Amino acid sequence: MAFVNEDNITDLAVRRWATAHPDRLAELMTALVRHVHEFAREVGLTEQEWAAAMEWLAATGRISDDKRQEFILCSDVLGLSTLVVQLNNRFSEQATPATVLGPFHIEGSPEAEFGQDMSDGLPGTPLFITGTVTGTDGKPVPGAVLDVWQADAEGTYEAQLPEVDEARLRAKYRARDDGSYCVRTIAPLGYSIPMDGPVGELIGTTEISHFRPAHVHFLIDEPGYARLITHLFQQGADYLDTDVVFGTKDALVVPFVEKQPGETPDGGSIDVPYLHAEFDFVLDGEVST
Amino acid sequence: MAFVNEDNITDLAVRRWATAHPDRLAELMTALVRHVHEFAREVGLTEQEWAAAMEWLAATGRISDDKRQEFILCSDVLGLSTLVVQLNNRFSEQATPATVLGPFHIEGSPEAEFGQDMSDGLPGTPLFITGTVTGTDGKPVPGAVLDVWQADAEGTYEAQLPEVDEARLRAKYRARDDGSYCVRTIAPLGYSIPMDGPVGELIGTTEISHFRPAHVHFLIDEPGYARLITHLFQQGADYLDTDVVFGTKDALVVPFVEKQPGETPDGGSIDVPYLHAEFDFVLDGEVST
Repeated sequence: MAFVNEDNITDLAVRRWATAHPDRLAELMTALVRHVHEFAREVGLTEQEWAAAMEWLAATGRISDDKRQEFILCSDVLGLSTLVVQLNNRFSEQATPATVLGPFHIEGSPEAEFGQDMSDGLPGTPLFITGTVTGTDGKPVPGAVLDVWQADAEGTYEAQLPEVDEARLRAKYRARDDGSYCVRTIAPLGYSIPMDGPVGELIGTTEISHFRPAHVHFLIDEPGYARLITHLFQQGADYLDTDVVFGTKDALVVPFVEKQPGETPDGGSIDVPYLHAEFDFVLDGEVST
Repeated sequence: MAFVNEDNITDLAVRRWATAHPDRLAELMTALVRHVHEFAREVGLTEQEWAAAMEWLAATGRISDDKRQEFILCSDVLGLSTLVVQLNNRFSEQATPATVLGPFHIEGSPEAEFGQDMSDGLPGTPLFITGTVTGTDGKPVPGAVLDVWQADAEGTYEAQLPEVDEARLRAKYRARDDGSYCVRTIAPLGYSIPMDGPVGELIGTTEISHFRPAHVHFLIDEPGYARLITHLFQQGADYLDTDVVFGTKDALVVPFVEKQPGETPDGGSIDVPYLHAEFDFVLDGEVST
């Protein structure tokens, strides 16, 4: 009988999980078994360490709910989320690179007009973001929807607040016929990832900085183009080169230029100083994955 | 600046987690990062698959509580638990081999006399288990405590029942001066692992048998000897060679011999047919790990 020992256990487990359907699940599960076993063998995992890991995993699940997903946070700080983004978004050189979605995107944001203020009176320095949406051929993508969301001037997202009636610092802008868009908001602040859970506890044993640099999220998903999920980062912001979720990319760092009161990029006017960031989004062609 | 791309992400993440304290945690975390990344690269993990995995992990944590640990079950069915047992219990040839602890051990079982019935009137076929506890030198281990637990004749453990006032099918027996012990109980039944959670759902996509063969658990932890956590399996039981948690070992399979009413192994008598299993536990010397 094929009873188990240290030498045959991995083969036995791989053979069993190879029966999963569909084939792709069998491929994933057998690779998972091999890598998990290899990890345990390589480090010589002790029974105490194994038990602590089991407890950590259960606690990480228990703290997760519909507003908080601690396993995504775990994936983020291990660099797995960014790796998966890279593997699945191999855009051409000219296209705007993708970065992590993050846990704070909310579906169904309201539509906003060109230059409409999505900060809706929240305290902060006014920020205009302008530019174009084009393909890699330079042609505008008229009507492209820019789904935008961000933290407030204290680094807090709507999804982190217990009760919010209306959309808060998120909106869907639309590119005009010439591809131009104009977002009006307030400058976001960098922030710490939640440190009160199992992931924070783990980060606390390291010298890893647990902050993200200030950024605004964009999601552009137009038919005929590769879906783009990305951020714009404020040039000179703290934590740019230590982003705890490995999200920063050179091409996504843009100056937030200080402007005096007066005319605004959308042709209106403002009586306080404001910031202006310019960025042209370039969408890759549809990629077959 | 060391911004991220597909080529450097793993190195960046390894470098960060190498700062964990103590050094052993850094060793574990950096190995984990490498293996998790390698897995994702090897299978070309898609964003949909990644998202499904995150959801699966959170659900697996949420279903876990103080009576149920779905991650241990997951580790069991992937063969990881058995691998960790093997890595940490490399006993000498003559010693009784270890197998998985399982999720149903309860601390603080009551002491039982030689031959005392730990089934306490529960329905089932009476079972006597007798033998000795010795070292690999053959010398008895007087007073060795055998912590015994098992499922009932329907395959259910005390830990799976909502409210039980007294210890149910578990007890601590003590070897006599000559090393001999005698457990009286009822024959256990093989059983299915819980199939109503995320692990069961995964098993359901495979042709893996989700049953364990009938067995009785033993834990013997004597000063001066390696701690032994093991099972005795009933020879001829169903699922012996497909044990879903990879726990079966040749040396642990013993005949449960049918006996007629009359004298019992502890020198008493019984008026119904019963089963008798004989097994000599051999404890390895203390191993330095």
